[in-house]
Amino acid sequence: MRAAAYTGDGVVSVTDATPTDPGPDDVVIDVAYVGVCGTDLHIIHGSMDARVSRPLVFGHEMSGTIRELGADVTGWNVGDSVTVMPLDWDGTCPACRNGNQHICQNLDFIGIDSPGALQQTWTVPASTLVPLPASLSLRTAALIEPVAVAVHDVRRSELRAGDRAVIIGGGPIGVLIASVARQAGAEIVVLELDPARRRMIEQLGFTTVDPSATDATAWVEEWTGGAGADVVFEVSGAAAAVRSATTFARVRGTIVIVAIHPTPREIDLQRVFWRELRLLGARVYQRIDFERAIELLNSDAIDAEAVITSVYPLTGVTDALAELQSGRALKILIDVQADA
Amino acid sequence: MRAAAYTGDGVVSVTDATPTDPGPDDVVIDVAYVGVCGTDLHIIHGSMDARVSRPLVFGHEMSGTIRELGADVTGWNVGDSVTVMPLDWDGTCPACRNGNQHICQNLDFIGIDSPGALQQTWTVPASTLVPLPASLSLRTAALIEPVAVAVHDVRRSELRAGDRAVIIGGGPIGVLIASVARQAGAEIVVLELDPARRRMIEQLGFTTVDPSATDATAWVEEWTGGAGADVVFEVSGAAAAVRSATTFARVRGTIVIVAIHPTPREIDLQRVFWRELRLLGARVYQRIDFERAIELLNSDAIDAEAVITSVYPLTGVTDALAELQSGRALKILIDVQADA
Repeated sequence: MRAAAYTGDGVVSVTDATPTDPGPDDVVIDVAYVGVCGTDLHIIHGSMDARVSRPLVFGHEMSGTIRELGADVTGWNVGDSVTVMPLDWDGTCPACRNGNQHICQNLDFIGIDSPGALQQTWTVPASTLVPLPASLSLRTAALIEPVAVAVHDVRRSELRAGDRAVIIGGGPIGVLIASVARQAGAEIVVLELDPARRRMIEQLGFTTVDPSATDATAWVEEWTGGAGADVVFEVSGAAAAVRSATTFARVRGTIVIVAIHPTPREIDLQRVFWRELRLLGARVYQRIDFERAIELLNSDAIDAEAVITSVYPLTGVTDALAELQSGRALKILIDVQADA
Repeated sequence: MRAAAYTGDGVVSVTDATPTDPGPDDVVIDVAYVGVCGTDLHIIHGSMDARVSRPLVFGHEMSGTIRELGADVTGWNVGDSVTVMPLDWDGTCPACRNGNQHICQNLDFIGIDSPGALQQTWTVPASTLVPLPASLSLRTAALIEPVAVAVHDVRRSELRAGDRAVIIGGGPIGVLIASVARQAGAEIVVLELDPARRRMIEQLGFTTVDPSATDATAWVEEWTGGAGADVVFEVSGAAAAVRSATTFARVRGTIVIVAIHPTPREIDLQRVFWRELRLLGARVYQRIDFERAIELLNSDAIDAEAVITSVYPLTGVTDALAELQSGRALKILIDVQADA
């Protein structure tokens, strides 16, 4: 079989590889589609070299069908369509014991800390499987993981119908958060610098603001009748966005930190105090978020084809990552079984 | 009558003044005791000159008895013992309309934005009065306002019995938060640099840590069995405290920003994301917090006399502020009716 692996120094190699034999509680999956994401870019840029072993088969957004069952696996059949929730927790750390397995203090994030989905056959614990409805295509199902991130972020925000939400950063996760929040009954504005992305976001029916051309704080103030936004999602990772986020939120409003900020950021704590703001970190997802993501994709609440901007064969993975890096794409998939 | 007023350039003058005639909805109070606090220091240091008019009679922590009722005031009698919740909101701004009158977007904080309690007779809206039980002395009652701040901070944190809480900064508000949190069933550690304050806090039965001598992060890690603290109260106002606060909190733990941070602070948003932390601003109080503060002081749950470290006459207000500035006192009161 073929697999794509990060081998260090910015290089991704596609090579022949040997499938991993399943343990008694594992399954082997014929991988169909894999989405590439910002975390994958962090990996191949070397930002996570201290964490990841090399070569690392990466990829953690996927769909596929079961090829083989481990000896002790029950409740699944060969040929079942599945996705994988790529979290393997120890179940014994303080976070797990307190019900927060998704942020286990010793979490194995499959595709980062152990081999991921960019291989034609992938062996994972059966406990990570999530079943797909027959009506959901494998192509669309590759979006479940990032949609689950967005579902988790919106759920964590406690956004309610009628709320006004500001989304800072119109990349794939920002657009999916916008879609999930709109489905929940919120009014949305997406702040995005790139004009090509703004056009795509507007085609999805969202209002956008270019914060380099418009005073976004004044815009939000007027939009909300002087109150400020109920919820702000910080999805850009930019230092300036953290500074402005506190100016957008209403009294007792919520700011959700979705993006990775690799270095400490300045924040206006005087404003946090003055308006009794609430700042929440939101990381990955829980199983309920995967289930909701499947419902949303299966009900056309999220227009998968408008979000998928291109599909590459496995041998094109380096080109796919370069397109993602350009900042103009939304979701890019790899068709793992396709011939080059 | 006598009044103490900030006249600018760090100067506080005690002079003869004329009492303000009450409007129909006002009452006139014979002020008994007034506590001085960090906000008063900010005022006399000129940090709030852009906000306050001068001369400003300041002071907003007080007790007293009603001397005179405005024509339309009902439900109160001359001679009633009272304190004042010094917030006058407009009732019409977006925050008020959403139930957050205490952070009205046009709030009049009495004693900052309008004349305060450091005068022998003080005229305030009857709507700000809070009745005192007969069993509570006027001296103890001067602590109600700062205790209400602590009650609000603990309530905002959603701290529960059995939680472990870290309090960064053992000044008056830090000590009162510790007392309220202990009463709620939490285990407490107070981080404080000053040895004299640490001794006072330990005499109140609390564990203290000197963060200049002990690795507080490692201490909290061990104290909590590797989990981290459930709640962290940032009461110091120090930049370093903001950096360390995120290292103390458990997965999904809460950090409450109580202190004033006049300039933006660096914060580890990666840790906020990674542990799904919750950062909350907490400002002033609601009426329920005043009522709970009175219950706590009246039940000896808070040892008022251990917290009151000195009492000055009104003519000694400058000395009182200097002692507060030294950073070694806890609560300092002004006996407004006492002869010099």
